[in-house]
Amino acid sequence: MKVSDLGEFGLIGLIRDTIEKNSSVSTDAFRDIVIGIGDDAAVWKCESPAHVATTDCMVEDIHFDLDIITWEELGHKALAVNLSDVAAMGSVPKYALVSLSVPGKTESGDIEQLYRGMVGLANQTGVYIIGGNVSSSNQVIITIAVFGLLKSPVAMTRSGARVGDQIVVTGYIGLSAAGLKMLHHSLKFTHDTTRLFREAHNKPVPRVTEGPTLLLYDVRAAIDISDGLMADLQHLCEASKVGAVINQDKLPVHPLIKKNFSREYIDMALGGGEDYELLFTTNGQIVERLRTSLSCPVTVIGEIVAGKPEIAVVDSKGNPVSVESRGWDHFKAK
Amino acid sequence: MKVSDLGEFGLIGLIRDTIEKNSSVSTDAFRDIVIGIGDDAAVWKCESPAHVATTDCMVEDIHFDLDIITWEELGHKALAVNLSDVAAMGSVPKYALVSLSVPGKTESGDIEQLYRGMVGLANQTGVYIIGGNVSSSNQVIITIAVFGLLKSPVAMTRSGARVGDQIVVTGYIGLSAAGLKMLHHSLKFTHDTTRLFREAHNKPVPRVTEGPTLLLYDVRAAIDISDGLMADLQHLCEASKVGAVINQDKLPVHPLIKKNFSREYIDMALGGGEDYELLFTTNGQIVERLRTSLSCPVTVIGEIVAGKPEIAVVDSKGNPVSVESRGWDHFKAK
Repeated sequence: MKVSDLGEFGLIGLIRDTIEKNSSVSTDAFRDIVIGIGDDAAVWKCESPAHVATTDCMVEDIHFDLDIITWEELGHKALAVNLSDVAAMGSVPKYALVSLSVPGKTESGDIEQLYRGMVGLANQTGVYIIGGNVSSSNQVIITIAVFGLLKSPVAMTRSGARVGDQIVVTGYIGLSAAGLKMLHHSLKFTHDTTRLFREAHNKPVPRVTEGPTLLLYDVRAAIDISDGLMADLQHLCEASKVGAVINQDKLPVHPLIKKNFSREYIDMALGGGEDYELLFTTNGQIVERLRTSLSCPVTVIGEIVAGKPEIAVVDSKGNPVSVESRGWDHFKAK
Repeated sequence: MKVSDLGEFGLIGLIRDTIEKNSSVSTDAFRDIVIGIGDDAAVWKCESPAHVATTDCMVEDIHFDLDIITWEELGHKALAVNLSDVAAMGSVPKYALVSLSVPGKTESGDIEQLYRGMVGLANQTGVYIIGGNVSSSNQVIITIAVFGLLKSPVAMTRSGARVGDQIVVTGYIGLSAAGLKMLHHSLKFTHDTTRLFREAHNKPVPRVTEGPTLLLYDVRAAIDISDGLMADLQHLCEASKVGAVINQDKLPVHPLIKKNFSREYIDMALGGGEDYELLFTTNGQIVERLRTSLSCPVTVIGEIVAGKPEIAVVDSKGNPVSVESRGWDHFKAK
């Protein structure tokens, strides 16, 4: 059945049912809901002194291509990119509002898969989808707003980096770019490699537990890697009014990328984007404590330096290297 | 200059400047901001025990036509429809996140006007635009999420209507439909009438102060009139599991609509939608107290009755009348 046959209120009913049937009801987020889906607005109880909110959208043919991502993966990813922004502040995400615009010809089963994907990630992260909106449009556009909590009005910010801080990233970078390349060019790898690359691009796992842990350990500067390492580090340097030196030989690039993209892996790591890892800066002592507290890789890739907000990339011998990829701009060609 | 020439970060800069230069900085909302536009997420301080959030979007050619609405009006309206939802819960709106998708060929001056319109209404209502997102797309799509406060976890809901309650509306209904008809068909009226109709459709004023006042006076059932009186009353009856009888001769139709649309004004009032007035139900005693507390018209149009969630429309003699307009469905033809 097509969405145009369901009509607006049939579609809202389908979405509501999908969310309610699949959502975890044993979370704090669920227990604090006063009014959920189906009224003019959602209402929840919350005693936290500080609140966090962000919004991000995914537009068909700009952010995703339905030939290489399933609806279920798309639902996961649309929520993930928002959770990642909340995590980058050190906040615990709690509620999401989902605004969906789709052409009337969209299959209702696809919408169900979309919300199943979203709810799957929401359940993993203790988040509840508390409301939203539907509309028709020419392209599929999913806009999500996520609200999170902070125990005090202190958050990690882009402006918190200080000269002498180490520059650190969680996990691996470049996997999403490898996934995109594999999917676009129908490249063939082993089953496990294919799955690793595909999931990195289509179902990124936001650092929802790591973000608040960083804040707890007094990390004060962070950003998530969405536009690409170089571009996001640039944002951080500009906001903090500092420069950066990074060592390209220290980038945490997964061995399977080095093996399969031996000529491009540095560019994928520096400019690929959409890894949704956290990039943060702090002192060496805190980094050491984090290595034992976080279950993901924690890699020092460089140092914050005084000067203009510029990034120097060097190799292990300290020699400067030139870099091509500078990240993603929606309105300009790469 | 076109948005594609500005690029994503140039566009974000333009939007940020427009918001910061034009926003009122003497509000509680401004003072409580910890981190505003420009980081991964916004952070604010807030001690309220209950929080309200909603999202709504406006899609080009579905919700608006740039031939009959200016960019400044569009900005106002996109925020207004969200503030109206928050008001319908009895909540005071505080912050907004704005996600904007536009074609690259859009003029940067138009974007500036869009945000000027939004900030104009935000200033009038004590709201601060605290963040957002931009992306390219084929159509203009503006998705806003608004957060509000409640002094306790009690809100007005669609499900709060009780048998015997009076059905009440604020202000006038049908003005927005009159405006839409005038603009679409280039109808000519006097200057003042043209302005009244145009502003009703293009710059609706959400009942931001009236909503919290209703809640303060113990009103427990409300909805805003976005889809149309009949459709929204139907939503309320379904959620409350009650029926309704309304008297079409009591509808608060502005004299200038009766005069200029003498054959259609009942349909405009019952089905037109987008008036963003509040429809609420409560007892007669509270209605009398509200008449002196609210500065807008407060009109009893009918009564909540036991039975199926159906609406009977009668005339002043109590005779049933048939009704054509049942409201708006984005995915189905009217």
